[in-house]
Amino acid sequence: MSSRFFERSDPVAFAGEDSRDPLAFRFYDKDKMVAGRRMEDHLRFAVCYWHSFTWPGSDPFGGETFDRPWMQGGDPLALARQKADVAFEMFRLLDVPFFTFHDVDVAPEGASLQASIDNLKAVTDLFEEKMATARVRLLWGTANLFSHKRYMAGAATNPDPDVFAYACGQVKAALDATHRLNGENYVCWGGREGYETLLNTDMKRELDQLGRFLAMLVEYKHKIGFGGPILIEPKPKEPTKHQYDFDAAAVFAFLQKYDLLGDVKLNLEQNHAILAGHSFEHEVRYAYANDLFGSLDVNRGDDLLGWDTDQFAMSAGEMALVFHEMLQHGGFTTGGLNFDAKIRRQSIAPDDLLIAHVASMDTCARGLVAADRMLADEALTGPLRTRYEGWESAENRAILSGERDLESIARRALDLDPQPRSGRQEMLEGIVNRYV
Amino acid sequence: MSSRFFERSDPVAFAGEDSRDPLAFRFYDKDKMVAGRRMEDHLRFAVCYWHSFTWPGSDPFGGETFDRPWMQGGDPLALARQKADVAFEMFRLLDVPFFTFHDVDVAPEGASLQASIDNLKAVTDLFEEKMATARVRLLWGTANLFSHKRYMAGAATNPDPDVFAYACGQVKAALDATHRLNGENYVCWGGREGYETLLNTDMKRELDQLGRFLAMLVEYKHKIGFGGPILIEPKPKEPTKHQYDFDAAAVFAFLQKYDLLGDVKLNLEQNHAILAGHSFEHEVRYAYANDLFGSLDVNRGDDLLGWDTDQFAMSAGEMALVFHEMLQHGGFTTGGLNFDAKIRRQSIAPDDLLIAHVASMDTCARGLVAADRMLADEALTGPLRTRYEGWESAENRAILSGERDLESIARRALDLDPQPRSGRQEMLEGIVNRYV
Amino acid sequence: MSSRFFERSDPVAFAGEDSRDPLAFRFYDKDKMVAGRRMEDHLRFAVCYWHSFTWPGSDPFGGETFDRPWMQGGDPLALARQKADVAFEMFRLLDVPFFTFHDVDVAPEGASLQASIDNLKAVTDLFEEKMATARVRLLWGTANLFSHKRYMAGAATNPDPDVFAYACGQVKAALDATHRLNGENYVCWGGREGYETLLNTDMKRELDQLGRFLAMLVEYKHKIGFGGPILIEPKPKEPTKHQYDFDAAAVFAFLQKYDLLGDVKLNLEQNHAILAGHSFEHEVRYAYANDLFGSLDVNRGDDLLGWDTDQFAMSAGEMALVFHEMLQHGGFTTGGLNFDAKIRRQSIAPDDLLIAHVASMDTCARGLVAADRMLADEALTGPLRTRYEGWESAENRAILSGERDLESIARRALDLDPQPRSGRQEMLEGIVNRYV
Amino acid sequence: MSSRFFERSDPVAFAGEDSRDPLAFRFYDKDKMVAGRRMEDHLRFAVCYWHSFTWPGSDPFGGETFDRPWMQGGDPLALARQKADVAFEMFRLLDVPFFTFHDVDVAPEGASLQASIDNLKAVTDLFEEKMATARVRLLWGTANLFSHKRYMAGAATNPDPDVFAYACGQVKAALDATHRLNGENYVCWGGREGYETLLNTDMKRELDQLGRFLAMLVEYKHKIGFGGPILIEPKPKEPTKHQYDFDAAAVFAFLQKYDLLGDVKLNLEQNHAILAGHSFEHEVRYAYANDLFGSLDVNRGDDLLGWDTDQFAMSAGEMALVFHEMLQHGGFTTGGLNFDAKIRRQSIAPDDLLIAHVASMDTCARGLVAADRMLADEALTGPLRTRYEGWESAENRAILSGERDLESIARRALDLDPQPRSGRQEMLEGIVNRYV
Repeated sequence: MSSRFFERSDPVAFAGEDSRDPLAFRFYDKDKMVAGRRMEDHLRFAVCYWHSFTWPGSDPFGGETFDRPWMQGGDPLALARQKADVAFEMFRLLDVPFFTFHDVDVAPEGASLQASIDNLKAVTDLFEEKMATARVRLLWGTANLFSHKRYMAGAATNPDPDVFAYACGQVKAALDATHRLNGENYVCWGGREGYETLLNTDMKRELDQLGRFLAMLVEYKHKIGFGGPILIEPKPKEPTKHQYDFDAAAVFAFLQKYDLLGDVKLNLEQNHAILAGHSFEHEVRYAYANDLFGSLDVNRGDDLLGWDTDQFAMSAGEMALVFHEMLQHGGFTTGGLNFDAKIRRQSIAPDDLLIAHVASMDTCARGLVAADRMLADEALTGPLRTRYEGWESAENRAILSGERDLESIARRALDLDPQPRSGRQEMLEGIVNRYV
Repeated sequence: MSSRFFERSDPVAFAGEDSRDPLAFRFYDKDKMVAGRRMEDHLRFAVCYWHSFTWPGSDPFGGETFDRPWMQGGDPLALARQKADVAFEMFRLLDVPFFTFHDVDVAPEGASLQASIDNLKAVTDLFEEKMATARVRLLWGTANLFSHKRYMAGAATNPDPDVFAYACGQVKAALDATHRLNGENYVCWGGREGYETLLNTDMKRELDQLGRFLAMLVEYKHKIGFGGPILIEPKPKEPTKHQYDFDAAAVFAFLQKYDLLGDVKLNLEQNHAILAGHSFEHEVRYAYANDLFGSLDVNRGDDLLGWDTDQFAMSAGEMALVFHEMLQHGGFTTGGLNFDAKIRRQSIAPDDLLIAHVASMDTCARGLVAADRMLADEALTGPLRTRYEGWESAENRAILSGERDLESIARRALDLDPQPRSGRQEMLEGIVNRYV
Repeated sequence: MSSRFFERSDPVAFAGEDSRDPLAFRFYDKDKMVAGRRMEDHLRFAVCYWHSFTWPGSDPFGGETFDRPWMQGGDPLALARQKADVAFEMFRLLDVPFFTFHDVDVAPEGASLQASIDNLKAVTDLFEEKMATARVRLLWGTANLFSHKRYMAGAATNPDPDVFAYACGQVKAALDATHRLNGENYVCWGGREGYETLLNTDMKRELDQLGRFLAMLVEYKHKIGFGGPILIEPKPKEPTKHQYDFDAAAVFAFLQKYDLLGDVKLNLEQNHAILAGHSFEHEVRYAYANDLFGSLDVNRGDDLLGWDTDQFAMSAGEMALVFHEMLQHGGFTTGGLNFDAKIRRQSIAPDDLLIAHVASMDTCARGLVAADRMLADEALTGPLRTRYEGWESAENRAILSGERDLESIARRALDLDPQPRSGRQEMLEGIVNRYV
Repeated sequence: MSSRFFERSDPVAFAGEDSRDPLAFRFYDKDKMVAGRRMEDHLRFAVCYWHSFTWPGSDPFGGETFDRPWMQGGDPLALARQKADVAFEMFRLLDVPFFTFHDVDVAPEGASLQASIDNLKAVTDLFEEKMATARVRLLWGTANLFSHKRYMAGAATNPDPDVFAYACGQVKAALDATHRLNGENYVCWGGREGYETLLNTDMKRELDQLGRFLAMLVEYKHKIGFGGPILIEPKPKEPTKHQYDFDAAAVFAFLQKYDLLGDVKLNLEQNHAILAGHSFEHEVRYAYANDLFGSLDVNRGDDLLGWDTDQFAMSAGEMALVFHEMLQHGGFTTGGLNFDAKIRRQSIAPDDLLIAHVASMDTCARGLVAADRMLADEALTGPLRTRYEGWESAENRAILSGERDLESIARRALDLDPQPRSGRQEMLEGIVNRYV
């Protein structure tokens, strides 16, 4: 079946920078060594199940455009298998090392929680079988706690404790499935953990509920021996008016308060970052500065639109700055670059799915190479070191280490008249332009 | 002199709801009891020095419009005294209990740090003398660590440790002055504590600098016996591209990391909230939920503009929701409603200063009364209690208190099929409209 | 059936300002005279079919929440009749004078254009029958040229001329139905008339297509004797990245270029206005200034969200400013206040539909009364007249009438030194607060 | 003097792509032929006077940072000459063909209109003399009708007709100076032609005033034989809440209504475009589609900030799309690329001025080359032609030429069932990435 969905049967291959084939890589050469690692091991690309295989092309003002064979009705588990065939065929064609999924992307919801869990188990069996002969591995799994109407007012933060309990049942099953498939991380996106209006919301209570929910998840992870981190994915709004996991800083505040540091890290996304008023690079920096970096959703938003467009990342310059930060910290450990990206609803040809991934994988590869060269040349790190070098003196180190107090420094300041130095922003922007 | 600046000499008085005099209060009746306190003691209004007496009406595309007598040049200290005369006359005419200032609003910067400190001391003497015979008290003082070019790349977060030291000198003097004038709080707004570009910024190092700076300030506060809290004022951006004190959550994350909880609270502003993507009410709720509430800057932004317009608050409905939250927590302790608000640059008549404050004070009073009535009627709190009442059962309390684990709850969930209940948003919005 | 959907059977009635019944009007008293007209004749409320009866409560991250009986599957025309029963029951309960619909809201799409037209005719028969015994009339009809996948790249602006032709077929049928039901206007919302990316878009050609499409629609309207205006509804974006009918000004530019003034007016919406960066009042003013005012969609957006939330209007102050403008121009002619508003997806109780409309109708009535009182007192119009009175001199009138040239005015200006006068913004804001 | 301001004395030269010198061009090779023209003749770079030589580095929260010698006080005309020496030295060092200025950038305002005009004449004499021996020419001049307090409520749209008259005097003098210096265009930016609040604004009257003002300017231009166009520069907001020249569409509507087409074109700016919710490319396309294209301000805004940052353009990809459009229409006629861009206020070194221009000129040159290659390969234009080719049939041409009516097309549509085709957005994005 799947061979009939995509016309091509050979995996997309590296063809060099001059290629004009939209189904060939110009920069992504998986075995090429960059900064001591194979490109594939740096980039750790993952294809997501939901946008690529589950979303029918609808938007708030229009219906299905994609007409995928597995969306045409029939026995739900048979359709799930048909979808899985195409998905694994695409993983093979793109030659990606990872994929990701929500429980409901892969398995139909049943008439009861138990039935849904059974469906998920059946699909997990299928995946296990497929993965035995495929290169692709599971980057992370997650539970969809936001689409069904029972979650309309939140899952962990629902005013109804039975919904909280139901979410516990669902998330346990999803983590079990992830663990069984050797997933390297487990992700929580709290799309309904927020509010539509404060008029009907007890924010403090809901945060306490969320804190407890995550604590139990961490306990369970340890109990079953799941070694990967729990990743929270910040997003400021949409679908709700306001989500508690607004941005990296809001999550950091939350994790400290509820004593969840260490076991929980961040899965960051460019589109969510800009909806919160931050650049992608900012969120990555903030995560590293506070030991929260986990994984990345690699997509892009539209700077002129106020909702999550989840477009394929196409800016090598933006990715270069992200990799520049990551390479200084050793790159990914358990994380990867997950394509939480969807082709536009007008991109209805099957090969649009492949073309989009190829173009964006190439963009990332180009950014990686640029970042590596910038670091090798100390193009940005050199000037940075110089800018702050005053803090390396013994007296100034003593300030930061807590050996000085306000009065003594204030007294010393009476003799100072510090003169500003140029921040050199345009020069640095010009330097970056040399590399991308 | 001051009698010639404002035409009227009698303080603005309460004249009842039907008054059409823009220089009379229609709702603010300072001695009227609301929720067990005098209105004045609830609202604790403060007039700020900078917008009202120091800003000349300029904007990025145009110069001075106000032509205040004390802005026309001459001996700096004489002008400072002339300005103080008008300021204290305005405090008297508005009959406000508080005022607020930055060091450089009230005293000219001198040729050296010592000279600036001396100027501030001279003005502090003058204020002490004036306050001895006036009703007005000091809500809070602060140091301007953002206007002078030495601070262009930050004060506490500057790459140059000499600038950090200079800021220590300035902030110590400002806290000393605040303490001497019996200020009830001390405020830190980090307008330059952020970055213009990440290309030249070491975020982690700068956050460490900021943490140390505040820790020393707290230590010093205790040493001199200053009893009020240090208040951080979050703002996401402007003047810089990105400020570290982005919003209440970012500050909470920071305070936890640098162990500053307890001594440091928040001074929240509506305009800063909306620039960060939050409602004012959200920030207030978040502050209370995390024991961070301190004080409020009462102004408003323009929802369609992307910068800090600092307009006078004129929405009783918005203020009612803020007071609704505050009254449930007992209202202000050391904090107050500071008019960090500026008349439009076209409002060049001297009495525009009075009219704007009067109209906004009335707006706040009206909001306070509405909030009190909503609480008395349990108009919002009643439905809220009902909505979450499921959590009051023993079994569900046990979840939150940590006596249950994921597996046991998941097992119990197999028998559940929770049905959603209406969130009643429109009904609640209609209810609020009954009160304002 | 419908009597079982809503519990109540008596129409909502006026009960006075002190009522606490969410299903009673506190301000809307339909026969009360305001500015020489009955309130009902001023406000001309319309209930829309799509949000109230067709939308299932889904959003981009979640499915159906409403579970309406007519959405549960079955014979499409039978379901359409069931839906119509509930709709007309709601029109009766709310006692609104008007309703509005898209073709596909009321009649199922068939397997061919002809079949769809036949379905629409069948429902038009049904409506005609129901309207014979009901008070409700048709404010406007419209064709949905944006939901079906054939329109994913536009209707009139589609790159495929066959889609353009299909849209002609659909819009002709919708106008025929509107005409037959004595609709007072016909509306065009160009939700897909724009682009997702300029990379694949020929903007000039598409604008020419759109101009021709509308010209033919105007010709046809005259031919069949449809007396109402064609109304264009501006919206800047969503669902597409950029719509050609961005705002009132973009439509005015377009109408002038394609010679469509006179026959085509505007249907303005608050939520679309703010997405375009304008206040609702701005768009209304602009429409009147250029003789384009037609009708209003009365809802509100969320100032902190970047998409169309279509919430029920609940701000009497905002509506007061809109009515203040409208009353100066005589109020509506063919237009009305259409509730293009949807209850939140958590408002799942049937009576939420009624409560939301009642609360918003009351908000509008309250705004109308406030506007009337402001005008009677010349509260805003008086100061406005004074502000511009200099232009009433003979010399200055001559400038505007074209009797002076740049040189003569420039020469006269050599003797001038004009002094600014206060714009009095805060005083005017305080005045408005007296009325709302 | 000027030789002492900049350290270097040799003009910046082309050094090839591998150069690492921030004061060498890597792409801009002025005599290199691209699409049949010298690069210099395509790009027509202009340096602006205001940001580079008049702005002191202040922002709304901070004062001067640049400390330029000519800003330190003294005889105004002597300082103006000193500034002009540095400016012309910079034009020479950057080897740009053009510059631009406002009247008040170059000449101090005097105590009366006549005195200001006299100052402008004196500086015009000086410029004439300097231009006699320099390569640099005047791209355009303009009058600053927004900074002085007399214009706080508008110039042409002021409620006070004496201000209108004063503006006539100033704009006549500025056009006279532009004409004398052989300026190729004359620009109007209506920074105060809008409103702060609709409460005190008569929008219709103000638009009529603005229409008359521009009509007189056009009449005068013809009278004195000034051959270039009048260029209006759209901007949606800032400094005011709302400007009448919101975007290209608003200006097009206005020009049509006031019969100003032909003589008036657009000067478009990226930063203004994005503040209005449009991409730069959109505004350029819209201008060409409606025969309004004039000239460009080449800078960039920050997508995450809500004000005019006027940063130097550094994205070759963005510029490539603009040039791609322009080259299809033959490129500039009288217009050019004006650097309405300012170095960041922390970029205080004199050579930051040069470095920023060089980096941005190179960005533009790189974009130009990419656009030329895309056109040569028909990389975008080929797929575009194919996408719309259905409209080339005789029947479909007849629709657009007005030979068909709604009924006949609707009848024909009964036999149609148009099938959607992929929009290929990701493929096209990937193609663009090949070129930049």
